[in-house]
Amino acid sequence: MKDSSKRRGSAASPCAACKLLRRRCAQDCVFAPYFPADEPHKFACVHKVFGASNINKTLQELEEHERGDAVRSMVYEAKARVRDPVYGCVGAISSLQQQIDDLQAQLALTQAQLVHMRMHSHNNHTHPLAFNDSTNL
Amino acid sequence: MKDSSKRRGSAASPCAACKLLRRRCAQDCVFAPYFPADEPHKFACVHKVFGASNINKTLQELEEHERGDAVRSMVYEAKARVRDPVYGCVGAISSLQQQIDDLQAQLALTQAQLVHMRMHSHNNHTHPLAFNDSTNL
Repeated sequence: MKDSSKRRGSAASPCAACKLLRRRCAQDCVFAPYFPADEPHKFACVHKVFGASNINKTLQELEEHERGDAVRSMVYEAKARVRDPVYGCVGAISSLQQQIDDLQAQLALTQAQLVHMRMHSHNNHTHPLAFNDSTNL
Repeated sequence: MKDSSKRRGSAASPCAACKLLRRRCAQDCVFAPYFPADEPHKFACVHKVFGASNINKTLQELEEHERGDAVRSMVYEAKARVRDPVYGCVGAISSLQQQIDDLQAQLALTQAQLVHMRMHSHNNHTHPLAFNDSTNL
């Protein structure tokens, strides 16, 4: 509501997308709700990576309630690609996958130590006489 | 070497990119080494998501030895966006991040159990008489 009232009339300021593309910002502009004029970098970035026409097409193909998330994920991807033109956000995926592998290995080791410790403790409870023979874990 | 000899002469078959864009595939075509004619879907996918002109620009801005990885990461991202137009590969990032949070919580719990178990075992070694009072972990 606030947005459309602000954008009513010929003096309405164009959204960041229409400003960059130097075109009239229509009242039903598909970009306007997601690319406000005061965040020009956001559109510049997705435009550089995906191109305005592809973003337009993607948004048009989605339900309105999905568009906000789509824009957020495209902005995230585009920023990653601008920062790292070779790997983009696939670099982040590889690094997260590596962290998962490391954590899984560490967890398996810790679980094995715990099982060992429990067996050891159980043996000590069952055979108190073996107590002094099993101090090394 | 094999590629350039295959593509010599006017009868050379265009790469997947030039075929889709219906243009002549020059001998120094920037797409040809990464988008062979027998994998048309690969280019179609990145073209749909990033646009041929943006891919061209990205490749031109990179060193030749970086281009293969850049194409692979763009193909990965594009396939993810085609599969999931709302979240693209940012969906994978969220899911990996969630896995990391879960693994970290599980690891912290297991480590705490191990520390508890070690203290318990240490107490049993130091005070063997307390042995039967500490069966609950």
